[in-house]
Amino acid sequence: MGQIFNFAAGPAQLPPELLTQAAADMFNWEGTGLSILELPFTSDEYRALAARTEADLRALLDIPADYQVLFLPGGAYAHMGLLAMNLLTPGQGADYVITGHWSQRAAAEAQRFCRVRVAASNLQTGCRDIPPPTTWRLDPAAAYCHITTNETADGVQFHETPDTGDVPLVADMTSDFLSRPVPVTKYGLIYASTQKNAGIAGLTIVIIHHRLLREAATEIPAVFDYRRQAAAAGRVNTPPVFAVYFTGLMCRWLRDRGGVTAAARAGEYKSSLLYRIIDAQPLYDCPVVPAARSRVNVCFHLTDPALQDEFLTRAEECGLRFLAGHSDTGGLRASLYNAMPEAGVQALAGFMNEFAAHRQPA
Amino acid sequence: MGQIFNFAAGPAQLPPELLTQAAADMFNWEGTGLSILELPFTSDEYRALAARTEADLRALLDIPADYQVLFLPGGAYAHMGLLAMNLLTPGQGADYVITGHWSQRAAAEAQRFCRVRVAASNLQTGCRDIPPPTTWRLDPAAAYCHITTNETADGVQFHETPDTGDVPLVADMTSDFLSRPVPVTKYGLIYASTQKNAGIAGLTIVIIHHRLLREAATEIPAVFDYRRQAAAAGRVNTPPVFAVYFTGLMCRWLRDRGGVTAAARAGEYKSSLLYRIIDAQPLYDCPVVPAARSRVNVCFHLTDPALQDEFLTRAEECGLRFLAGHSDTGGLRASLYNAMPEAGVQALAGFMNEFAAHRQPA
Repeated sequence: MGQIFNFAAGPAQLPPELLTQAAADMFNWEGTGLSILELPFTSDEYRALAARTEADLRALLDIPADYQVLFLPGGAYAHMGLLAMNLLTPGQGADYVITGHWSQRAAAEAQRFCRVRVAASNLQTGCRDIPPPTTWRLDPAAAYCHITTNETADGVQFHETPDTGDVPLVADMTSDFLSRPVPVTKYGLIYASTQKNAGIAGLTIVIIHHRLLREAATEIPAVFDYRRQAAAAGRVNTPPVFAVYFTGLMCRWLRDRGGVTAAARAGEYKSSLLYRIIDAQPLYDCPVVPAARSRVNVCFHLTDPALQDEFLTRAEECGLRFLAGHSDTGGLRASLYNAMPEAGVQALAGFMNEFAAHRQPA
Repeated sequence: MGQIFNFAAGPAQLPPELLTQAAADMFNWEGTGLSILELPFTSDEYRALAARTEADLRALLDIPADYQVLFLPGGAYAHMGLLAMNLLTPGQGADYVITGHWSQRAAAEAQRFCRVRVAASNLQTGCRDIPPPTTWRLDPAAAYCHITTNETADGVQFHETPDTGDVPLVADMTSDFLSRPVPVTKYGLIYASTQKNAGIAGLTIVIIHHRLLREAATEIPAVFDYRRQAAAAGRVNTPPVFAVYFTGLMCRWLRDRGGVTAAARAGEYKSSLLYRIIDAQPLYDCPVVPAARSRVNVCFHLTDPALQDEFLTRAEECGLRFLAGHSDTGGLRASLYNAMPEAGVQALAGFMNEFAAHRQPA
């Protein structure tokens, strides 16, 4: 089999050198004689690992000291509800900005626990853009305003951080976390599960301003109570040790390659390679307006949908895997996380050009 | 460094041959050319992996078809609250049998969400035994009766399954899951996180009778709604793929070694080696009555507590690691999960005899 490039939305491609490292650490992690999988979470070794991973993450994103970093189980979808449980005071509602599939899910999940107001939405225009923040109808009494910085299923991404005034801005950054610099101080809470750009499935990172770590108004299982977890340094229960470890590897790997600034440059370059073909070849179409196009998940479709199965089959034969779009939105999608090398994107670009040349619609 | 035996309560020792397997699967899992860490959870490959792991688990524990098996995030501590949220109808309470540290935590966690009645407790006698089920004051209207089949911190274990009549029996089996056969049909719900006998940290297995999969009376994040997860075959969100994979490895490993019957025999043998020394040597003491002693976590202490630091230091020097007791209960503890070889227990037994011989109290 030739080289495989994994364009899945997550879990997705990881840096080969980190897989080599993880394989070695299966047997003897940092000279302890223990497998990384056998490390007790109460040991000094785990505390040091978690502390170092947090320090590396703080350095990468320039996270100020008045923000807490939590390594939690559950996945981002779980925290869509849990954050509402943690942040709301009785009677308070929350504002949601709808920009596609995942922000809709975030709002639906929060609705179980609070009154949700849609402050802005791009549904009427088919999730093709980011509603201009000047048009958002924000409630100054809202507990928070929620955005999804990158819509994995729709290929829509915020390229600027909106200003929500005194209302804390809460962001699901799962799919573009660590893909670019983030002005952390503009956010009250950032959450991201790690199986895309920041490691493997099984861990959610919550970055929360201390001011929001207050006693919750509702009962929450202790493991998901952000205030308790902050007080216990994230060890209320056994954390997902291996997933924390892998995020640590990813942070060091990224740091050694120029950090998030270099990652942003690479993401721009890789995504532009594909968008250029999509815009030039009549066989491909991306409905998202250029200013809102995701540099992480390039979502597109064939103008002749009958060719989609053939496109996917032939791509797979070339080692270009998992290019089908999200099951709810259909079409095609190439996810370009930090670990996707330029060579993978060039291989896909070459394939797309060749496929279009032979299957040009009449 | 000589051989290390890891007696931690979890994450703990794993079979070396599975670490070798996991290291190989870092690069090319089952000929797919993908790392097991890169496997998209929506892929046919992941579905097959999860289905096979479930089938192997069902075979090991003889789980009938009218029970659902769920692979969930969160850890057992999270599910102490979540199961109450899932099982209770409005106004209903739940019965708890207190046998040590973890059943107390289970009751405290459930108390956030429902009225908790203590049906029996061994606290008055210092967590030394299992209160005889004939003395339990059960509420026939309770939503369920909760037990902790093995108390990791206290070394107390149920050796028979109590009969709670029409009230569903709910059990935290985290620390003795897969250590012995279980009469599953006597339980309404069994839950266990996997970082002890069944894999690595990051996964909780819930085995639940279909009858209990009803719409919850309270709002629960979708990821933790057992009914929704059952309907979605455990893929409401990205599951902890690597932890599921490792549980799959553990199930096959156990099956190839005679299953849970052989595991129970081995556990009896290994624990009896240590209890024999504890009872014979005046330097050691185990307060738990013999009939309730855990075959998984041998908890004991030195009759001369001033020697504990020396005991631990010298044990570490001999490669016998993580023998300190739970931080809340103190003393010493040897956890003997399935992956702890007899050679490890013999090494510890030899060390204990030698230490006692040189440090006999006057």
